[in-house]
Amino acid sequence: MKLAIYGYGNIGRGVELAARQNPDMELVGVFTRRDPATVQTLTGVNVFAADSIDDFVGKIDAVVLCGGSATDLPVLTPKLAEKFNVVDSFDTHARIPEHFAAVDAAARRGGTTALISGGWDPGMFSLARLYGGALLPEGKDYTFWGRGVSQGHSDAIRRIPGVADARQYTVPIAAALDAVRSGTQPELTAREKHLRECYVVAEEGADKAAIETAIKTMPNYFADYNTTVTFITAEELRREHAALPHGGFVIRSGTTGLNGEHKHSIEYRLELDSNPEFTAGALVALARAVSRMQEKGQTGCKTIFDVAPADLSPLSAEELRAHLL
Amino acid sequence: MKLAIYGYGNIGRGVELAARQNPDMELVGVFTRRDPATVQTLTGVNVFAADSIDDFVGKIDAVVLCGGSATDLPVLTPKLAEKFNVVDSFDTHARIPEHFAAVDAAARRGGTTALISGGWDPGMFSLARLYGGALLPEGKDYTFWGRGVSQGHSDAIRRIPGVADARQYTVPIAAALDAVRSGTQPELTAREKHLRECYVVAEEGADKAAIETAIKTMPNYFADYNTTVTFITAEELRREHAALPHGGFVIRSGTTGLNGEHKHSIEYRLELDSNPEFTAGALVALARAVSRMQEKGQTGCKTIFDVAPADLSPLSAEELRAHLL
Repeated sequence: MKLAIYGYGNIGRGVELAARQNPDMELVGVFTRRDPATVQTLTGVNVFAADSIDDFVGKIDAVVLCGGSATDLPVLTPKLAEKFNVVDSFDTHARIPEHFAAVDAAARRGGTTALISGGWDPGMFSLARLYGGALLPEGKDYTFWGRGVSQGHSDAIRRIPGVADARQYTVPIAAALDAVRSGTQPELTAREKHLRECYVVAEEGADKAAIETAIKTMPNYFADYNTTVTFITAEELRREHAALPHGGFVIRSGTTGLNGEHKHSIEYRLELDSNPEFTAGALVALARAVSRMQEKGQTGCKTIFDVAPADLSPLSAEELRAHLL
Repeated sequence: MKLAIYGYGNIGRGVELAARQNPDMELVGVFTRRDPATVQTLTGVNVFAADSIDDFVGKIDAVVLCGGSATDLPVLTPKLAEKFNVVDSFDTHARIPEHFAAVDAAARRGGTTALISGGWDPGMFSLARLYGGALLPEGKDYTFWGRGVSQGHSDAIRRIPGVADARQYTVPIAAALDAVRSGTQPELTAREKHLRECYVVAEEGADKAAIETAIKTMPNYFADYNTTVTFITAEELRREHAALPHGGFVIRSGTTGLNGEHKHSIEYRLELDSNPEFTAGALVALARAVSRMQEKGQTGCKTIFDVAPADLSPLSAEELRAHLL
């Protein structure tokens, strides 16, 4: 199948590499809003101007949209869904219903198949929550993130006066994980579930104590957590904190039996060296599914909840039954 | 939706209890090949003779078949699929293609929807293998079972002369799990992955040394594993080993990146106090899906690979997107 990448940042590069791992995929090209002459791809894939994508109608089975959720995707996904099957990784949880409605209307007009909010959260973690609740209706969901880099929290630190650069790690607290796994279904506060580790490069002459206070008291981002702040040099940040690891846990803790006497735990855990590359792997598998759903006449906007798992795999139904069931 | 239970053993009782946890489910009855007058259900559900199920055509949305894979299901599932939507937990991996073909032919004749091999392995573990391989095409799957009671291995011990009763626990070896989680993709032998713990009640005057040797040298079941044999009394077996816990791990270990430099691990873990009750919970969710697929005209034989996750949940598509995505 013929795949295109729209937007060439961390996720776009990840999609380029993921496509190489899937022999049934062929990359038509990378579409960018920058000057194509200035963009060098990792593996020599062709680069085109974003505006030229209309010339490729009928020549692309699915476009993977690799833009930001704040301003890019709310505009781009509906626009491209009018002419192409598309997949995005829209991750602003609160705005999913609104984004879904806009993309669904566009895809219905175009007779295309669109999938929004692919990746791992939203995405595989969402699936773990759905399966867990369906199998153990009497129970409780717990989602832990990390240990991993939170871009949103890193950005929040960078906006503080006197901060030159920063990296924030979200760290799940082992005692909370153990409590959840014990099956007691504890109520846990934000502070009990996650620790926030901040590595900060201060500008020359900046007031480090003031920066530390600004971080630790920042509402929503840090005030509700135990937060550590460590000042490091720009060189240390580059050397020790350049990677983008992430991961986490979704645990469903539930009970069954005549009197709820049997405890069960379903745990889905990710440990990722590269958040964008793993996300990209999910988007490529979802692009395969979107293309197959289009062939079956399943048009409109979908989410990972609507995708029959078999459609994600390059294997045939017979192979899946014989080897994976 | 209207559910029926066909066969009333451990899984049948589990389905009865699971249906109670799902407000959209109503149990039409339990169908048994025993004399219905001798069967007392846990929650007062009506009991009918198996043969009378034909009187219920059109009054049941899905029949959950709770029989054994060796002789019951290969006959029963195709037979019932001619007239009803059905779900079974057929778990003889090697015979799945053959069973699928027989059930598919019957369901196509009847215009019904059938799902085979539901539960957790096959079932949720199969799904974990499929998703893992689709997201990380360059990698390796590892499945570990336990700690839990293996009925097949317990039965094998009971067939040894001089054995009155037995319980066998399959135990995953922590060092092997750690090696897999490290991302090195080790090759592991059967012996390195699992330990077999046997609790045996010997008949009076039996030769315990001979029993221990017979167990430890039994081909396929024990010879390839480190096996411990502990002789206990019938009373100890009843008191300490009456439960049917189980569980396990499916781990996908894979790499991404320009030169495979990033490691990733996806781990799906179950810890179950009651193997049959958890299996039953999966079968009930699958029965919901089968009924919905029938409404959408998706007939024939399916597996969990064909089920769009949303169809397992009692929540609407809007609720799922707003709260779980």
